[in-house]
Amino acid sequence: MSFEPTMDFVKSLEEAVATQDTQSIRDTLKDMHAADISMVLDRMEADECRYILGLLHKELSADVISELDEDTQREFLKSFEPVELAGYMDYTDSDDAADILNLLPVKMKEEVIASMKNKEKVAHITDLLKYDEDCAGGLMAKELIKANINWDIKQCIEEIRRQTKNVDKILTVYVVDDMGMLQGRVSLKKIILSKDETLIKDISVPQVHVVQTYYEKEDVAEIMQKYDLEAVPVVNMQGKLLGRITIDDIVDVITEQAEMNQQMMSGLSENVEEDDTVWMLSRARLPWLLIGMMGGLMGAQLMGFFEGDLELVPAMAFFIPLITATGGNVGIQSSTLVVQALANPAAGLLGSSAGARLFKVFMVALINGLAISSIVFVFVIFFKGMSLAFTVSIALFCVVLLASFMGTITPLLLDKLGINPALASGPFITTANDLLGLAVYFIIARVLMSAL
Amino acid sequence: MSFEPTMDFVKSLEEAVATQDTQSIRDTLKDMHAADISMVLDRMEADECRYILGLLHKELSADVISELDEDTQREFLKSFEPVELAGYMDYTDSDDAADILNLLPVKMKEEVIASMKNKEKVAHITDLLKYDEDCAGGLMAKELIKANINWDIKQCIEEIRRQTKNVDKILTVYVVDDMGMLQGRVSLKKIILSKDETLIKDISVPQVHVVQTYYEKEDVAEIMQKYDLEAVPVVNMQGKLLGRITIDDIVDVITEQAEMNQQMMSGLSENVEEDDTVWMLSRARLPWLLIGMMGGLMGAQLMGFFEGDLELVPAMAFFIPLITATGGNVGIQSSTLVVQALANPAAGLLGSSAGARLFKVFMVALINGLAISSIVFVFVIFFKGMSLAFTVSIALFCVVLLASFMGTITPLLLDKLGINPALASGPFITTANDLLGLAVYFIIARVLMSAL
Repeated sequence: MSFEPTMDFVKSLEEAVATQDTQSIRDTLKDMHAADISMVLDRMEADECRYILGLLHKELSADVISELDEDTQREFLKSFEPVELAGYMDYTDSDDAADILNLLPVKMKEEVIASMKNKEKVAHITDLLKYDEDCAGGLMAKELIKANINWDIKQCIEEIRRQTKNVDKILTVYVVDDMGMLQGRVSLKKIILSKDETLIKDISVPQVHVVQTYYEKEDVAEIMQKYDLEAVPVVNMQGKLLGRITIDDIVDVITEQAEMNQQMMSGLSENVEEDDTVWMLSRARLPWLLIGMMGGLMGAQLMGFFEGDLELVPAMAFFIPLITATGGNVGIQSSTLVVQALANPAAGLLGSSAGARLFKVFMVALINGLAISSIVFVFVIFFKGMSLAFTVSIALFCVVLLASFMGTITPLLLDKLGINPALASGPFITTANDLLGLAVYFIIARVLMSAL
Repeated sequence: MSFEPTMDFVKSLEEAVATQDTQSIRDTLKDMHAADISMVLDRMEADECRYILGLLHKELSADVISELDEDTQREFLKSFEPVELAGYMDYTDSDDAADILNLLPVKMKEEVIASMKNKEKVAHITDLLKYDEDCAGGLMAKELIKANINWDIKQCIEEIRRQTKNVDKILTVYVVDDMGMLQGRVSLKKIILSKDETLIKDISVPQVHVVQTYYEKEDVAEIMQKYDLEAVPVVNMQGKLLGRITIDDIVDVITEQAEMNQQMMSGLSENVEEDDTVWMLSRARLPWLLIGMMGGLMGAQLMGFFEGDLELVPAMAFFIPLITATGGNVGIQSSTLVVQALANPAAGLLGSSAGARLFKVFMVALINGLAISSIVFVFVIFFKGMSLAFTVSIALFCVVLLASFMGTITPLLLDKLGINPALASGPFITTANDLLGLAVYFIIARVLMSAL
């Protein structure tokens, strides 16, 4: 279905590069999409990439470079001469070009821009470099078609013709006044169906969905997803049209965001990938392992207070993993549901009042807590007798209730504090619930054992 | 930025419904987008929704119904008369209409279809109902513009004019031969820039990316994301053009997929949401809790073999949570990275050989294992003396290595078996690592304690 380069494919291409067999390289890559070529180059050395790109059309090479994995880009852009890179950047969409230039050291960035021939592109790029990569300004491309509200269709079509090389996918024509303020939009369908003399102002409709340059990319994604937009115009505070964001970039934002949340839930502290270096991977993992470790050591300290009880009934220790694991599992389940509800306000999941929600959490915990602790009760009474059976199953029941409550409250609290609530679903809540579970278990044990 | 209905907003609308104040309802909703109105209705009762929809334009109501949350749809569609629902379905895009009809009991579905007036729509819908919801055929809409390859631009524009009411967003014109076989496509830009007499065949380009009706939705999403497509045509085995899938539906597929993986990682077994019933939520959670419980009880059994050691050194129990928690954390970190690499083959993360990858996993585990176990060693030697310090830190080190290995291998294995590897990052791997960790800890303890 979608192209997937085999090891053999990459190897044969590498051989062609080694023997400088330009004909075979051109033949191999002739009908391939830029995204596919970039997948092949992601698996090759910087020098080989550079050689192959030199053989392709400038425009295609520019597309391939934008599609490369960011790690590959960073690696092999260093090997370019500024003039060489500038030659490609002349053909790259302004948003991709700005992203690529942002990966370079400042000096090289300036040299590349100075060597570019496409002066309109240079103006676009230097404008985009002002914005933070994570906001709408950093996501937008400058390439779009705008028509003056006083033009007629004929003038508008002339503008489309003039811009046809620069703007790959038009999607919609934005309507501006003489000051460049966004006034509305006209669909290509309407342009096709209107007469040459028709005035733009008579067929334009108001542009309802607009984003400001400072909007965060998650907010842009939410708007475009909710209103099913293929593109959204970006304006400044005064309402001047500055660029547009297309859905393909937003799809990438959504995917990235999902991966980051997943990593946060799993206790990976940086945005790492499996092919990063050993050092990066270790560093991304260590912080959460240390937090978990501190939790474990605190648990050890806590149990120190109950050493006497353990000496009396060593079998109590047998159920420690059961208690802590159940607390962890319940906590993660609860917090994930809240995190997803928070991430998706459009679904209106958080509509009900806090009281009603907590009552529901309590009911679910009650059902599951009863189910699990009664099974455990039967098991323990059979193997270890009445008093331990009561202790373990009552403690387990309390832990399910407490962990549900903690798992629900923590992400809501983090969200209120402006911290990503996905943090709560990770080792953080597991560690907290481990400690809580241990404390509950040993306190209940001491009370019950002395009573029974 | 994006509209978010307040409690007050919903309440005042509910009052207007109660007093049948049609004017105020119409005024309130006048300039609102269908997606926003649906968010309001998601928070209201079925009867109220039905009353409000009756006051809006049929077309707008149809859009609102398609945008409603699936749970709300299912709930309130039951309250409709078939004729009434048919009136809305006449205006709904074929793909959305098919999705809605799929929520109805078979009898009502047939009645609604029989009551529809738009016969072309009926043909579209009955065609779509044949396909499974999770494949390309179930995702596609029948509404699109197709032009015969032998037409000229003028005929093509006539066709666009004829279809203008049915096809909201054209995006591209598909070119077919007399048999309806897909031959290529023409962009609206080219149509605008060409003369009336130009033949379609002279300006059409081959349609490179095509999906078959049986493609799974995840594969469609991968193709559209990789090649930055706003729409992709769907063909049957013979190459006949049947419909198209637009990016807005794919964005929803990607979001759903990410949520499902997150839930699977968290041990939620069905696709639940926070606002589902107590019973559904309990049922979705229980299976994993039971697996975790069984793991815990097996752990208890396992420790039974070492009761003598625990009686001798009760302090050994203090470090059980540390061992199990660390194993769980390391396992989840490792499996998440593999799961993400598997989910994203385009990034080429799995390019390296299995041997190289395992070596890297080993190196990362070595670094983190050494870091954690040396801290723990110092802590334990201080509080509990040499022999326990050696036992705990060596066991911890082994657990980090083992859990990394398990966390890497398990998702790869599941993937090979055709099971969603995200399962591996959930309670499954935590439970397995708990048991493994306990076994390692007690075995090392017995060996070392008798040796030291």
